[in-house]
Amino acid sequence: MNKPTLKIVKIGGHIINDSSQLAIFLEDFAKLKGNKILVHGGGKKASEIACSMGITPKMIDGRRITDEATLEIVTMVYAGLINKNMVAQLQANSCNAIGVSGADGNMIQATKRPVKEIDYGYAGDVEKVHGAHLKTLIDSGLIPVFCPISHDKKGQLLNTNADTIAAEVAVGMSDFFEVELNYVFEADGVLEDVSDKTSVIDTIDVGYYQELIANGTISDGMLPKIHNCFDALKRGVCEVRIGGVTLIKNNAALYTTLII
Amino acid sequence: MNKPTLKIVKIGGHIINDSSQLAIFLEDFAKLKGNKILVHGGGKKASEIACSMGITPKMIDGRRITDEATLEIVTMVYAGLINKNMVAQLQANSCNAIGVSGADGNMIQATKRPVKEIDYGYAGDVEKVHGAHLKTLIDSGLIPVFCPISHDKKGQLLNTNADTIAAEVAVGMSDFFEVELNYVFEADGVLEDVSDKTSVIDTIDVGYYQELIANGTISDGMLPKIHNCFDALKRGVCEVRIGGVTLIKNNAALYTTLII
Repeated sequence: MNKPTLKIVKIGGHIINDSSQLAIFLEDFAKLKGNKILVHGGGKKASEIACSMGITPKMIDGRRITDEATLEIVTMVYAGLINKNMVAQLQANSCNAIGVSGADGNMIQATKRPVKEIDYGYAGDVEKVHGAHLKTLIDSGLIPVFCPISHDKKGQLLNTNADTIAAEVAVGMSDFFEVELNYVFEADGVLEDVSDKTSVIDTIDVGYYQELIANGTISDGMLPKIHNCFDALKRGVCEVRIGGVTLIKNNAALYTTLII
Repeated sequence: MNKPTLKIVKIGGHIINDSSQLAIFLEDFAKLKGNKILVHGGGKKASEIACSMGITPKMIDGRRITDEATLEIVTMVYAGLINKNMVAQLQANSCNAIGVSGADGNMIQATKRPVKEIDYGYAGDVEKVHGAHLKTLIDSGLIPVFCPISHDKKGQLLNTNADTIAAEVAVGMSDFFEVELNYVFEADGVLEDVSDKTSVIDTIDVGYYQELIANGTISDGMLPKIHNCFDALKRGVCEVRIGGVTLIKNNAALYTTLII
Protein backbone atom coordinates (compact mmCIF):
# COMPACT_ATOMS: atom_id res chain seq x y z
CA MET A 1 0.00 0.00 0.00
CA ASN A 2 1.31 3.44 -0.88
CA LYS A 3 2.02 5.70 2.05
CA PRO A 4 0.31 9.12 2.07
CA THR A 5 2.57 12.05 1.30
CA LEU A 6 3.80 14.61 3.83
CA LYS A 7 5.46 17.91 3.01
CA ILE A 8 7.85 19.34 5.58
CA VAL A 9 8.85 22.96 5.04
CA LYS A 10 11.67 24.63 6.93
CA ILE A 11 12.01 28.41 6.92
CA GLY A 12 14.97 30.32 8.26
CA GLY A 13 15.65 33.60 9.93
CA HIS A 14 15.78 35.70 6.77
CA ILE A 15 12.01 35.23 6.22
CA ILE A 16 11.13 35.51 9.91
CA ASN A 17 12.96 38.85 10.09
CA ASP A 18 10.86 40.29 7.25
CA SER A 19 7.23 40.50 8.43
CA SER A 20 5.73 41.22 5.00
CA GLN A 21 7.68 38.37 3.36
CA LEU A 22 6.65 36.13 6.28
CA ALA A 23 2.97 37.04 5.85
CA ILE A 24 3.09 36.10 2.14
CA PHE A 25 4.94 32.88 2.93
CA LEU A 26 2.41 31.86 5.61
CA GLU A 27 -0.43 32.52 3.16
CA ASP A 28 1.29 30.24 0.63
CA PHE A 29 1.94 27.60 3.30
CA ALA A 30 -1.73 27.73 4.37
CA LYS A 31 -2.78 27.05 0.77
CA LEU A 32 -0.43 24.06 0.39
CA LYS A 33 -2.59 20.94 -0.10
CA GLY A 34 -2.24 17.72 1.87
CA ASN A 35 -0.35 16.73 5.03
CA LYS A 36 2.25 19.26 6.06
CA ILE A 37 4.56 20.40 8.85
CA LEU A 38 6.29 23.76 9.24
CA VAL A 39 9.65 24.09 10.99
CA HIS A 40 10.99 27.54 11.78
CA GLY A 41 14.34 28.87 12.86
CA GLY A 42 15.08 31.76 15.10
CA GLY A 43 15.85 34.96 13.37
CA LYS A 44 17.32 38.13 14.73
CA LYS A 45 14.68 38.59 17.43
CA ALA A 46 16.51 36.42 20.00
CA SER A 47 19.65 38.55 19.66
CA GLU A 48 17.61 41.77 19.81
CA ILE A 49 15.82 40.68 23.00
CA ALA A 50 19.12 39.51 24.51
CA CYS A 51 20.70 42.89 23.78
CA SER A 52 17.74 44.79 25.26
CA MET A 53 18.24 42.72 28.43
CA GLY A 54 21.94 43.56 28.47
CA ILE A 55 23.05 40.07 27.41
CA THR A 56 25.57 39.90 24.56
CA PRO A 57 24.96 36.95 22.23
CA LYS A 58 28.00 34.64 22.13
CA MET A 59 28.78 33.11 18.78
CA ILE A 60 31.67 30.85 17.73
CA ASP A 61 32.02 30.20 13.98
CA GLY A 62 28.45 31.45 13.47
CA ARG A 63 27.02 29.05 16.07
CA ARG A 64 25.27 30.37 19.14
CA ILE A 65 26.66 29.43 22.55
CA THR A 66 23.61 28.68 24.67
CA ASP A 67 24.38 29.58 28.28
CA GLU A 68 21.56 29.56 30.84
CA ALA A 69 20.43 33.14 30.15
CA THR A 70 20.51 32.51 26.40
CA LEU A 71 18.45 29.32 26.77
CA GLU A 72 15.77 31.37 28.58
CA ILE A 73 15.78 33.88 25.75
CA VAL A 74 15.61 31.40 22.87
CA THR A 75 12.86 29.48 24.69
CA MET A 76 10.88 32.70 25.04
CA VAL A 77 11.49 33.93 21.52
CA TYR A 78 11.37 30.68 19.50
CA ALA A 79 8.69 28.73 21.42
CA GLY A 80 6.72 31.80 22.54
CA LEU A 81 6.92 34.90 20.41
CA ILE A 82 7.76 33.53 16.95
CA ASN A 83 5.90 30.22 17.20
CA LYS A 84 2.62 31.58 18.58
CA ASN A 85 2.53 34.55 16.23
CA MET A 86 3.04 32.20 13.27
CA VAL A 87 0.29 29.91 14.57
CA ALA A 88 -2.09 32.89 14.96
CA GLN A 89 -1.30 34.07 11.42
CA LEU A 90 -1.83 30.57 10.00
CA GLN A 91 -5.13 30.33 11.88
CA ALA A 92 -6.17 33.63 10.27
CA ASN A 93 -5.46 31.91 6.93
CA SER A 94 -7.73 28.97 7.85
CA CYS A 95 -4.78 26.66 8.48
CA ASN A 96 -5.38 24.75 11.71
CA ALA A 97 -1.83 25.08 13.05
CA ILE A 98 -0.58 23.80 16.40
CA GLY A 99 2.76 25.09 17.63
CA VAL A 100 5.08 22.60 19.29
CA SER A 101 8.59 22.23 20.63
CA GLY A 102 10.37 18.90 20.83
CA ALA A 103 9.38 18.68 24.51
CA ASP A 104 5.67 18.67 23.63
CA GLY A 105 4.42 15.11 23.40
CA ASN A 106 8.07 14.11 23.84
CA MET A 107 8.28 14.45 20.06
CA ILE A 108 11.99 15.30 19.82
CA GLN A 109 14.30 13.88 22.43
CA ALA A 110 17.87 15.18 22.42
CA THR A 111 21.06 15.08 24.44
CA LYS A 112 23.08 18.06 25.57
CA ARG A 113 26.03 18.35 23.22
CA PRO A 114 29.17 16.88 24.86
CA VAL A 115 31.84 19.47 25.65
CA LYS A 116 34.91 18.97 23.44
CA GLU A 117 37.01 21.92 22.23
CA ILE A 118 33.95 24.19 22.48
CA ASP A 119 31.26 24.20 25.18
CA TYR A 120 28.06 24.98 23.29
CA GLY A 121 26.12 25.05 26.56
CA TYR A 122 22.47 23.99 26.34
CA ALA A 123 22.66 22.90 22.70
CA GLY A 124 20.80 19.70 21.90
CA ASP A 125 21.75 16.96 19.47
CA VAL A 126 18.67 15.05 18.33
CA GLU A 127 18.58 11.50 19.60
CA LYS A 128 15.11 10.30 18.68
CA VAL A 129 11.94 11.59 17.03
CA HIS A 130 8.84 9.98 18.57
CA GLY A 131 6.58 10.13 15.56
CA ALA A 132 3.39 8.42 16.78
CA HIS A 133 1.91 11.47 18.54
CA LEU A 134 3.01 13.73 15.71
CA LYS A 135 1.14 11.42 13.32
CA THR A 136 -1.95 11.64 15.58
CA LEU A 137 -1.90 15.43 15.26
CA ILE A 138 -1.59 15.24 11.49
CA ASP A 139 -4.26 12.53 11.14
CA SER A 140 -6.68 14.70 13.14
CA GLY A 141 -6.21 17.57 10.67
CA LEU A 142 -3.82 19.69 12.70
CA ILE A 143 -0.74 21.28 11.11
CA PRO A 144 2.28 21.04 13.45
CA VAL A 145 4.58 24.07 13.57
CA PHE A 146 7.94 23.24 15.18
CA CYS A 147 10.20 25.71 16.92
CA PRO A 148 13.89 24.75 17.30
CA ILE A 149 13.72 23.75 20.97
CA SER A 150 14.03 20.12 22.11
CA HIS A 151 14.44 18.45 25.51
CA ASP A 152 16.37 15.64 27.15
CA LYS A 153 13.34 13.93 28.84
CA LYS A 154 15.01 14.75 32.17
CA GLY A 155 13.46 18.20 32.47
CA GLN A 156 16.06 20.16 30.48
CA LEU A 157 15.11 22.19 27.40
CA LEU A 158 17.77 22.38 24.69
CA ASN A 159 18.43 24.79 21.84
CA THR A 160 18.52 22.77 18.62
CA ASN A 161 19.41 23.64 15.05
CA ALA A 162 16.23 24.11 12.98
CA ASP A 163 17.70 22.49 9.83
CA THR A 164 18.46 19.42 11.92
CA ILE A 165 14.97 19.41 13.48
CA ALA A 166 13.44 19.49 9.99
CA ALA A 167 15.67 16.65 8.73
CA GLU A 168 15.16 14.46 11.82
CA VAL A 169 11.37 14.99 11.82
CA ALA A 170 11.40 14.12 8.10
CA VAL A 171 13.33 10.89 8.79
CA GLY A 172 11.09 10.06 11.77
CA MET A 173 7.91 10.55 9.74
CA SER A 174 9.22 8.40 6.85
CA ASP A 175 7.88 5.35 8.70
CA PHE A 176 4.35 6.62 8.06
CA PHE A 177 4.58 8.93 5.05
CA GLU A 178 6.33 9.54 1.73
CA VAL A 179 8.17 12.62 2.94
CA GLU A 180 9.17 15.59 0.81
CA LEU A 181 11.52 17.89 2.74
CA ASN A 182 11.66 21.53 1.61
CA TYR A 183 14.29 24.02 2.71
CA VAL A 184 13.34 27.63 2.05
CA PHE A 185 16.53 29.48 1.54
CA GLU A 186 18.00 32.89 0.72
CA ALA A 187 18.80 31.82 -2.87
CA ASP A 188 16.44 30.06 -5.29
CA GLY A 189 18.41 26.82 -4.88
CA VAL A 190 21.98 25.54 -5.12
CA LEU A 191 23.78 27.85 -7.52
CA GLU A 192 26.27 26.67 -10.13
CA ASP A 193 27.81 30.16 -10.06
CA VAL A 194 27.34 32.06 -6.77
CA SER A 195 27.56 35.37 -8.61
CA ASP A 196 24.62 34.40 -10.86
CA LYS A 197 21.36 34.05 -8.92
CA THR A 198 19.66 32.40 -11.88
CA SER A 199 22.22 29.58 -12.17
CA VAL A 200 20.08 27.26 -10.05
CA ILE A 201 21.01 23.60 -10.42
CA ASP A 202 17.89 21.56 -11.25
CA THR A 203 18.80 18.19 -9.73
CA ILE A 204 21.70 16.86 -7.68
CA ASP A 205 22.21 13.13 -7.17
CA VAL A 206 24.96 11.51 -5.10
CA GLY A 207 27.45 11.38 -7.99
CA TYR A 208 26.90 14.99 -9.01
CA TYR A 209 27.10 16.01 -5.34
CA GLN A 210 30.64 14.57 -5.08
CA GLU A 211 31.55 16.40 -8.30
CA LEU A 212 30.17 19.72 -6.94
CA ILE A 213 32.22 19.32 -3.76
CA ALA A 214 35.36 18.46 -5.75
CA ASN A 215 35.03 21.51 -8.02
CA GLY A 216 34.22 23.80 -5.08
CA THR A 217 30.64 24.68 -6.11
CA ILE A 218 29.40 23.37 -2.78
CA SER A 219 31.62 24.74 -0.04
CA ASP A 220 31.66 26.44 3.36
CA GLY A 221 28.24 26.72 5.05
CA MET A 222 26.53 24.82 2.23
CA LEU A 223 28.61 21.68 2.88
CA PRO A 224 26.98 20.59 6.16
CA LYS A 225 23.53 21.68 4.89
CA ILE A 226 23.71 19.50 1.78
CA HIS A 227 25.40 16.70 3.73
CA ASN A 228 22.38 16.66 6.11
CA CYS A 229 20.00 16.57 3.15
CA PHE A 230 21.67 13.49 1.66
CA ASP A 231 21.79 11.92 5.10
CA ALA A 232 17.99 12.39 5.37
CA LEU A 233 17.53 10.87 1.90
CA LYS A 234 19.62 7.83 2.89
CA ARG A 235 17.47 7.42 6.01
CA GLY A 236 14.15 7.24 4.17
CA VAL A 237 13.13 10.74 3.06
CA CYS A 238 11.90 10.57 -0.56
CA GLU A 239 12.94 13.96 -1.87
CA VAL A 240 14.68 17.10 -0.64
CA ARG A 241 14.07 20.45 -2.33
CA ILE A 242 15.98 23.66 -1.76
CA GLY A 243 14.61 26.96 -3.03
CA GLY A 244 13.58 30.53 -2.33
CA VAL A 245 10.39 31.82 -0.70
CA THR A 246 8.44 30.79 -3.79
CA LEU A 247 9.48 27.13 -3.30
CA ILE A 248 6.07 26.06 -2.04
CA LYS A 249 4.10 27.95 -4.68
CA ASN A 250 2.59 25.62 -7.27
CA ASN A 251 4.41 27.29 -10.11
CA ALA A 252 7.80 27.74 -8.43
CA ALA A 253 10.05 28.21 -11.42
CA LEU A 254 13.42 27.53 -9.85
CA TYR A 255 14.58 25.15 -7.14
CA THR A 256 17.09 22.37 -6.63
CA THR A 257 15.98 18.80 -6.06
CA LEU A 258 18.28 16.39 -4.22
CA ILE A 259 17.76 12.69 -4.82
CA ILE A 260 19.61 9.44 -4.25
CA MET B 1 -23.92 6.36 28.90
CA ASN B 2 -21.75 7.94 31.58
CA LYS B 3 -19.20 10.38 30.28
CA PRO B 4 -15.56 9.78 31.25
CA THR B 5 -14.18 12.14 33.88
CA LEU B 6 -11.71 14.97 33.22
CA LYS B 7 -9.80 16.88 35.85
CA ILE B 8 -8.77 20.44 35.03
CA VAL B 9 -6.22 21.98 37.37
CA LYS B 10 -5.37 25.68 37.35
CA ILE B 11 -2.27 26.94 39.13
CA GLY B 12 -1.44 30.55 39.73
CA GLY B 13 1.62 32.72 39.97
CA HIS B 14 2.42 31.97 43.61
CA ILE B 15 3.40 28.38 42.72
CA ILE B 16 5.11 29.32 39.46
CA ASN B 17 7.28 31.81 41.34
CA ASP B 18 8.54 29.13 43.73
CA SER B 19 10.55 26.58 41.74
CA SER B 20 10.76 23.96 44.49
CA GLN B 21 7.01 24.18 45.21
CA LEU B 22 6.38 24.02 41.46
CA ALA B 23 8.54 20.89 41.11
CA ILE B 24 6.58 19.13 43.86
CA PHE B 25 3.27 20.23 42.35
CA LEU B 26 4.24 18.97 38.87
CA GLU B 27 5.23 15.61 40.38
CA ASP B 28 1.80 15.40 42.04
CA PHE B 29 0.06 16.45 38.83
CA ALA B 30 2.00 13.81 36.85
CA LYS B 31 0.77 11.15 39.30
CA LEU B 32 -2.88 12.23 39.00
CA LYS B 33 -4.83 9.36 37.39
CA GLY B 34 -7.18 9.72 34.42
CA ASN B 35 -7.85 12.47 31.89
CA LYS B 36 -6.41 15.81 32.91
CA ILE B 37 -5.53 19.31 31.73
CA LEU B 38 -3.23 21.83 33.40
CA VAL B 39 -3.80 25.58 33.08
CA HIS B 40 -1.13 27.96 34.33
CA GLY B 41 -1.03 31.66 35.02
CA GLY B 42 1.82 34.03 34.60
CA GLY B 43 3.73 34.77 37.71
CA LYS B 44 6.27 37.42 38.39
CA LYS B 45 8.56 36.46 35.51
CA ALA B 46 6.71 38.62 32.94
CA SER B 47 7.16 41.71 35.11
CA GLU B 48 10.81 40.82 35.77
CA ILE B 49 11.57 40.42 32.06
CA ALA B 50 9.66 43.61 31.26
CA CYS B 51 11.71 45.52 33.84
CA SER B 52 14.99 44.11 32.54
CA MET B 53 13.98 45.40 29.09
CA GLY B 54 13.19 48.82 30.54
CA ILE B 55 9.41 48.41 30.22
CA THR B 56 7.36 49.30 33.31
CA PRO B 57 4.37 46.98 33.81
CA LYS B 58 1.11 48.97 33.78
CA MET B 59 -1.55 47.75 36.20
CA ILE B 60 -4.99 49.21 36.94
CA ASP B 61 -6.83 47.70 39.95
CA GLY B 62 -4.44 44.74 39.86
CA ARG B 63 -5.13 44.02 36.19
CA ARG B 64 -2.36 44.21 33.65
CA ILE B 65 -2.71 46.66 30.75
CA THR B 66 -1.45 44.77 27.71
CA ASP B 67 0.09 47.24 25.30
CA GLU B 68 2.02 45.96 22.27
CA ALA B 69 5.35 45.60 24.08
CA THR B 70 3.63 43.87 27.01
CA LEU B 71 1.85 41.44 24.67
CA GLU B 72 5.27 40.46 23.23
CA ILE B 73 6.57 39.85 26.73
CA VAL B 74 3.63 37.81 28.02
CA THR B 75 3.65 35.74 24.81
CA MET B 76 7.34 35.03 25.35
CA VAL B 77 7.08 34.32 29.05
CA TYR B 78 3.74 32.49 29.28
CA ALA B 79 3.74 30.51 26.00
CA GLY B 80 7.51 30.11 25.82
CA LEU B 81 9.47 30.14 29.05
CA ILE B 82 6.89 29.00 31.62
CA ASN B 83 4.89 26.65 29.40
CA LYS B 84 7.82 24.79 27.84
CA ASN B 85 9.71 24.42 31.11
CA MET B 86 6.58 22.95 32.73
CA VAL B 87 6.13 20.58 29.79
CA ALA B 88 9.78 19.47 30.05
CA GLN B 89 9.42 18.89 33.80
CA LEU B 90 6.19 16.92 33.32
CA GLN B 91 7.91 14.84 30.63
CA ALA B 92 10.68 14.08 33.12
CA ASN B 93 7.90 12.79 35.41
CA SER B 94 6.59 10.49 32.64
CA CYS B 95 3.58 12.70 31.99
CA ASN B 96 3.15 13.12 28.23
CA ALA B 97 2.39 16.85 28.31
CA ILE B 98 1.77 19.07 25.29
CA GLY B 99 1.90 22.82 25.83
CA VAL B 100 -0.70 24.91 24.03
CA SER B 101 -2.05 28.42 23.79
CA GLY B 102 -5.59 29.19 22.69
CA ALA B 103 -4.28 29.90 19.19
CA ASP B 104 -3.01 26.32 18.81
CA GLY B 105 -5.62 24.21 17.06
CA ASN B 106 -7.86 27.31 17.36
CA MET B 107 -8.79 25.91 20.76
CA ILE B 108 -9.67 29.21 22.46
CA GLN B 109 -11.05 31.99 20.31
CA ALA B 110 -11.39 35.39 21.96
CA THR B 111 -12.18 39.00 21.16
CA LYS B 112 -10.11 42.01 22.13
CA ARG B 113 -11.78 43.58 25.15
CA PRO B 114 -13.84 46.62 24.04
CA VAL B 115 -12.47 49.94 25.31
CA LYS B 116 -14.82 51.49 27.89
CA GLU B 117 -13.49 53.52 30.84
CA ILE B 118 -10.22 51.59 30.70
CA ASP B 119 -8.29 50.45 27.63
CA TYR B 120 -6.87 47.06 28.61
CA GLY B 121 -5.04 46.83 25.30
CA TYR B 122 -4.51 43.32 23.91
CA ALA B 123 -6.62 41.62 26.56
CA GLY B 124 -8.85 38.84 25.26
CA ASP B 125 -12.34 37.89 26.41
CA VAL B 126 -13.05 34.25 25.60
CA GLU B 127 -15.70 33.82 22.94
CA LYS B 128 -15.59 30.11 22.16
CA VAL B 129 -13.65 27.00 23.17
CA HIS B 130 -13.31 24.60 20.23
CA GLY B 131 -13.15 21.36 22.16
CA ALA B 132 -12.96 18.73 19.43
CA HIS B 133 -9.21 19.00 18.82
CA LEU B 134 -8.57 19.27 22.54
CA LYS B 135 -10.50 16.03 22.99
CA THR B 136 -8.39 14.42 20.25
CA LEU B 137 -5.23 15.29 22.18
CA ILE B 138 -6.66 13.85 25.41
CA ASP B 139 -8.01 10.72 23.69
CA SER B 140 -4.55 10.05 22.23
CA GLY B 141 -3.01 10.10 25.71
CA LEU B 142 -1.55 13.59 25.66
CA ILE B 143 -1.93 15.96 28.62
CA PRO B 144 -2.66 19.53 27.45
CA VAL B 145 -0.95 22.35 29.35
CA PHE B 146 -2.57 25.74 28.64
CA CYS B 147 -0.84 29.07 28.93
CA PRO B 148 -3.06 32.16 29.30
CA ILE B 149 -2.76 33.39 25.71
CA SER B 150 -5.64 33.22 23.24
CA HIS B 151 -6.24 34.65 19.75
CA ASP B 152 -8.97 36.30 17.71
CA LYS B 153 -8.68 34.01 14.61
CA LYS B 154 -7.66 37.09 12.64
CA GLY B 155 -3.96 36.80 13.46
CA GLN B 156 -3.93 38.65 16.78
CA LEU B 157 -2.73 37.00 19.99
CA LEU B 158 -4.49 38.16 23.18
CA ASN B 159 -3.53 38.09 26.85
CA THR B 160 -6.28 36.24 28.72
CA ASN B 161 -6.98 35.66 32.41
CA ALA B 162 -5.89 32.13 33.38
CA ASP B 163 -8.83 31.59 35.79
CA THR B 164 -11.16 32.37 32.90
CA ILE B 165 -9.25 30.06 30.53
CA ALA B 166 -9.62 27.22 33.05
CA ALA B 167 -13.35 27.87 33.53
CA GLU B 168 -14.08 28.22 29.82
CA VAL B 169 -12.09 25.09 28.91
CA ALA B 170 -13.98 23.27 31.68
CA VAL B 171 -17.33 24.40 30.26
CA GLY B 172 -16.24 23.56 26.70
CA MET B 173 -15.13 20.07 27.67
CA SER B 174 -18.38 19.38 29.57
CA ASP B 175 -19.90 18.26 26.26
CA PHE B 176 -17.54 15.27 26.30
CA PHE B 177 -16.55 14.73 29.93
CA GLU B 178 -17.77 14.93 33.52
CA VAL B 179 -15.49 17.83 34.41
CA GLU B 180 -13.99 18.53 37.82
CA LEU B 181 -12.39 21.97 37.90
CA ASN B 182 -9.65 22.54 40.51
CA TYR B 183 -8.25 25.93 41.44
CA VAL B 184 -4.95 25.73 43.31
CA PHE B 185 -4.84 28.73 45.51
CA GLU B 186 -2.74 30.51 48.16
CA ALA B 187 -5.07 29.35 50.97
CA ASP B 188 -6.37 25.82 51.53
CA GLY B 189 -9.83 26.87 50.35
CA VAL B 190 -12.46 29.52 51.05
CA LEU B 191 -11.95 30.61 54.67
CA GLU B 192 -14.77 31.30 57.09
CA ASP B 193 -12.39 33.54 59.04
CA VAL B 194 -9.57 35.06 56.94
CA SER B 195 -7.35 35.30 60.02
CA ASP B 196 -7.65 31.52 60.60
CA LYS B 197 -6.03 29.48 57.84
CA THR B 198 -7.66 26.28 59.10
CA SER B 199 -11.22 27.64 58.88
CA VAL B 200 -11.70 26.14 55.42
CA ILE B 201 -15.35 25.86 54.40
CA ASP B 202 -16.08 22.29 53.26
CA THR B 203 -18.89 22.85 50.76
CA ILE B 204 -20.59 25.91 49.32
CA ASP B 205 -23.86 25.63 47.42
CA VAL B 206 -25.77 28.50 45.78
CA GLY B 207 -27.76 29.34 48.91
CA TYR B 208 -24.74 29.33 51.19
CA TYR B 209 -22.84 31.38 48.59
CA GLN B 210 -25.45 34.18 48.81
CA GLU B 211 -25.22 34.01 52.61
CA LEU B 212 -21.40 34.28 52.51
CA ILE B 213 -21.61 37.34 50.26
CA ALA B 214 -24.25 38.94 52.53
CA ASN B 215 -22.18 38.45 55.67
CA GLY B 216 -18.99 39.61 53.96
CA THR B 217 -17.08 36.31 54.15
CA ILE B 218 -16.67 36.35 50.35
CA SER B 219 -15.59 39.83 49.30
CA ASP B 220 -13.10 41.79 47.19
CA GLY B 221 -10.96 39.66 44.87
CA MET B 222 -12.74 36.47 45.88
CA LEU B 223 -16.10 37.73 44.59
CA PRO B 224 -15.37 37.50 40.83
CA LYS B 225 -13.42 34.24 41.37
CA ILE B 226 -16.31 32.48 43.10
CA HIS B 227 -18.82 34.07 40.71
CA ASN B 228 -16.90 32.51 37.78
CA CYS B 229 -16.90 29.13 39.53
CA PHE B 230 -20.68 29.13 39.95
CA ASP B 231 -21.04 30.33 36.37
CA ALA B 232 -18.98 27.30 35.23
CA LEU B 233 -21.16 25.00 37.34
CA LYS B 234 -24.33 26.45 35.80
CA ARG B 235 -22.87 25.87 32.34
CA GLY B 236 -22.21 22.15 32.81
CA VAL B 237 -19.12 21.68 34.98
CA CYS B 238 -19.86 19.00 37.61
CA GLU B 239 -17.76 20.19 40.51
CA VAL B 240 -15.37 23.03 41.36
CA ARG B 241 -12.77 22.62 44.09
CA ILE B 242 -10.60 25.34 45.59
CA GLY B 243 -7.59 24.45 47.70
CA GLY B 244 -3.89 24.78 48.36
CA VAL B 245 -0.98 23.08 46.60
CA THR B 246 -2.00 19.78 48.16
CA LEU B 247 -5.43 19.95 46.48
CA ILE B 248 -4.58 17.29 43.90
CA LYS B 249 -2.93 14.92 46.38
CA ASN B 250 -5.13 11.89 47.08
CA ASN B 251 -5.26 12.63 50.78
CA ALA B 252 -5.75 16.41 50.57
CA ALA B 253 -7.23 17.15 53.98
CA LEU B 254 -8.67 20.58 53.35
CA TYR B 255 -10.38 22.16 50.38
CA THR B 256 -13.65 23.83 49.47
CA THR B 257 -16.11 22.20 47.10
CA LEU B 258 -18.55 24.37 45.16
CA ILE B 259 -21.72 22.72 43.90
CA ILE B 260 -25.12 23.74 42.53
